[in-house]
Amino acid sequence: MTQKKRNAFYAQSGGVTSVINASACGVIETARQHKKFINKVYAGRNGIIGALTEDLIDTSKESKKDIAALKYTPSGAFGSCRYKLKSIEENRAEYERLIEVFKAHDIGYFFYNGGGDSMDTAHKVSQLSETMGYPITCIGIPKTVDNDLPITDNCPGFGSVAKYVAVSIREAGFDVASMAKTSTKVFVMEVMGRHAGWIAAAGGLAAESEGDAPHIILFPEIAFNKEKFLKKVDRCVKKFGYCAIVVSEGAAYKDGTFLADAGTTDAFGHKQLGGVAPVVAQMVKDELGYKYHWAVADYLQRAARHIASETDVEQAYAMGKAAVELAVSGKNAVMPTIVRKNTKTYKWTIGEASLSKVANVEKMMPRNYISRDGMHITQACRDYMQPLIKGESYPPYKNGLPQYVTLKNEAVKKKLKKKFDI
Amino acid sequence: MTQKKRNAFYAQSGGVTSVINASACGVIETARQHKKFINKVYAGRNGIIGALTEDLIDTSKESKKDIAALKYTPSGAFGSCRYKLKSIEENRAEYERLIEVFKAHDIGYFFYNGGGDSMDTAHKVSQLSETMGYPITCIGIPKTVDNDLPITDNCPGFGSVAKYVAVSIREAGFDVASMAKTSTKVFVMEVMGRHAGWIAAAGGLAAESEGDAPHIILFPEIAFNKEKFLKKVDRCVKKFGYCAIVVSEGAAYKDGTFLADAGTTDAFGHKQLGGVAPVVAQMVKDELGYKYHWAVADYLQRAARHIASETDVEQAYAMGKAAVELAVSGKNAVMPTIVRKNTKTYKWTIGEASLSKVANVEKMMPRNYISRDGMHITQACRDYMQPLIKGESYPPYKNGLPQYVTLKNEAVKKKLKKKFDI
Repeated sequence: MTQKKRNAFYAQSGGVTSVINASACGVIETARQHKKFINKVYAGRNGIIGALTEDLIDTSKESKKDIAALKYTPSGAFGSCRYKLKSIEENRAEYERLIEVFKAHDIGYFFYNGGGDSMDTAHKVSQLSETMGYPITCIGIPKTVDNDLPITDNCPGFGSVAKYVAVSIREAGFDVASMAKTSTKVFVMEVMGRHAGWIAAAGGLAAESEGDAPHIILFPEIAFNKEKFLKKVDRCVKKFGYCAIVVSEGAAYKDGTFLADAGTTDAFGHKQLGGVAPVVAQMVKDELGYKYHWAVADYLQRAARHIASETDVEQAYAMGKAAVELAVSGKNAVMPTIVRKNTKTYKWTIGEASLSKVANVEKMMPRNYISRDGMHITQACRDYMQPLIKGESYPPYKNGLPQYVTLKNEAVKKKLKKKFDI
Repeated sequence: MTQKKRNAFYAQSGGVTSVINASACGVIETARQHKKFINKVYAGRNGIIGALTEDLIDTSKESKKDIAALKYTPSGAFGSCRYKLKSIEENRAEYERLIEVFKAHDIGYFFYNGGGDSMDTAHKVSQLSETMGYPITCIGIPKTVDNDLPITDNCPGFGSVAKYVAVSIREAGFDVASMAKTSTKVFVMEVMGRHAGWIAAAGGLAAESEGDAPHIILFPEIAFNKEKFLKKVDRCVKKFGYCAIVVSEGAAYKDGTFLADAGTTDAFGHKQLGGVAPVVAQMVKDELGYKYHWAVADYLQRAARHIASETDVEQAYAMGKAAVELAVSGKNAVMPTIVRKNTKTYKWTIGEASLSKVANVEKMMPRNYISRDGMHITQACRDYMQPLIKGESYPPYKNGLPQYVTLKNEAVKKKLKKKFDI
C-alpha cells in the first residue's frame, strides 16, 4: 500500500492503437484529480525504455487542453516500444534498474498500458518490489488491437480497428459491385492478426444481408483450402456478380506455412514478404481468370482515429481512469477489465483482474464465432462484436484535416549518474 | 433544342468515386423539379452498356428518400463500366444503336457522368444526333479521381480521395513516429494515379510543419532517382526518427519502367504485379536496413465515403444539378465546370465548357506544384488543393456502420426486338 503522496510512472507498450492515448488521457486527467495521492505523472519516453534509461517525460508540463486532446489523437503520444523484459532470472539487472529509477524519482505507481507481455512485466515488477522491499503499486491497463487478453470482455483498441475494417470492406464492396460487369470482379483486403482472426472477423459485420460484402473471410484459425476457397469465389461471382474477400495476414496452409510466404521472390531471388492479399488475388486470377484488385490496410487500420468506435474510445478512457482509481484505493497487481452485462442491449461496467491471471494467457477466438464452412462469421460472433464498433467519435478538423496533438514531452531532469544500455 | 417533355438517360462511366452518386442525386432530384421538360430519368445499368443493350433502370420507381441517400452513398448505384465507344468511323453501329434505343424510349436528354473518355463519347453522340436528325441534348457531368479534366478547376471525386490520402498518411505517420525507437522506421503508402501525381500530391497536405508526415512523395511526373531517394529517407530517419512516404502507383524510372514492375516474380517465375509500395519498402530495407511497413489503399481510397470532403460532395451534387439546368435551358454539348473565384478565401461558382474542348484533353499537374527536389509539394499546390478537402460530410450510421443505399433498380420494359452484343 503506497498511500502517501508519490509520483506515478505511465508507459505505452507494443503496437499502438487509435485509442491508447485515450487511456493515457484517462490516467493523467484522473491522476490530476487525486493530488492527495499522486504528485506528478511521469511518462516513459518510448515506453519502458524510458524507465530503463531514465528518460522520463514530465506530463505536468502539458496543458489541460493538450491532455484532453489525447482522447482523440491516435498513436502513442510518449512513444511506445517493442521491448520485452526478460525473466527476472535471466536479467535481474533490468528489474533492479527499474526500481532504481523509480526510487530516484519517488515513483510509487507504475501504470503499464499494453498487451499480454506488458501485463506480465507489470506483474513481475510488482513481485520484485515486494522482494526488494520497495513499495510500488503496479496496475496494468489493457490495450491491444489483437483483442487477445483474457478475463476482460474485449480490449481497448480492437473496437476501432474492427470498425475501420467493417466500414472499409463495405465501401470497397460497393465499389467493386459497380465495376464488376466489365472490370474488377474480385477484391481482396488484407488485415492484421497474425495469430488470431478477431480483426478479420470484424469485416464480417459489414455483411448484414445476403450478397453483402465481404463474401469470404480467411482466418488464421482455419487451414486454407485452396479448392474450397476458389469454389466459393466462383459461386459468389456467378451469384452476386462479384466477390469481396477479407484475409487475415496470418492465413496459412494446413502445414502452418503462411499464404504470404508462398514462394514469392524478388529480382535477386530474395524471399519477398509481399503480403497475403496479392497472393490470394493472383491465385484467383490464375485459376478463375477474374480481374482483381487488392488492398493492404496495414497501419492505416490501427491508426484510423478518424473512424474510431465511440464505444472503444470510452472504454479506453475508462480503463485509464479506473487504473488510477484502483491504485489510489490501495489495489495492487491488477488490471481493470471491461465486463459485459447480461442485458438485452449492450451495457458494460468495470471489473478487475489479478495480473497473475492475465499475464501470458492468450484468449483465442471461439470456434463457434466462425461459420461451419470456415469462411465467414456466425451470429454469436456478431452478437459479441457489433456493440464494440458502435458509435462515432470524430476528432476536430481544421483545413480538412484532423487536428491531432503533439505534446511538448519535456524531459524530467536525470538524477542517476549511471547510464543503462539497452 | 428539345424543349418538349421527354425522358432523360443518365449513365455512370469508368472508375467510380465516393461522390459520383451525389451527382446522380443532383441529376434525379433536379429533373424531378423540371417535370415540364423531363418526364422520367432512365439510368443505364452498368453505364453506357445499359443503353446499348436496352437495359434501362426506371429511377422514377425509387423513393425520394432513397434518391436523397445517393448523396452519401459511394460507388455507382446503377453500375458503371469500363467500355469506350470506338470512333464513329470504326463502329458506327454502336452509335446508331444508341440513337435507336433513345428513340424507342423517347429519350431527349443524355447525361453522361465520367472522365475524359466519357466526355468524348457525349460529344460524339451530340454530333451524331445532328447528322442522324434525331434531336438529343447531350450534357457531360465531370467525374474523376484523377482530376485531369481540362477547363474545370477540379473534378468531383478528387477532393474526397485527396482527403482520404492526407488523413491516412497523417494518422499512419503518428503511428510510425511512436514505433520508430525500437521497431518500424519507414512507412510507405501507395496511392492511385498511374499517369499523374494529383492524388500522391494530396498526401503532402498532411505535412503542415517541419517533420510532419509525409516526408517524401514519389510522383509519376518525376523520374525515380534511387540514390537521391535513399539519401532523403536516411536523412529523415536521422533527423525525425522516422520517414513516411507516399508513392504513386505510377512512379517510374527514367526509362519509363514502373517501379512496381521492377522484376518481381512469383514461385512459378510469373511476373508479379505486387504494387509499388512493397518494392520501395524492400529497397529501403536492403540499402539502409530500416524496418518498414507498407500499405496499399487501392479501392479503399476512392470508396471512402465515410471521410469524404464536404466541398467535394457539394460540388458533385452541384454538377449533377447544373447539368439538368443547362439541359432544360436549351444548352447542348456542354459540361458544367467548377470555377474558382479570385477571392482570398476559397469560393467557387458554376461555369460551362463545350464538350468539344473537353474531349480528349488531359490536364497535367503543373511542375510548379512539385518541390524543386521532386519529392514534395509546393505552396502553390497547397493553395490549390487545400480548399478541395475542406469540410466533413458524414453519412448516417446504424449499428456502427454507414447506412449506404442499395436502389431497387427496376428495369424499364424493353421495346426493341433486336438484341445488341457488346
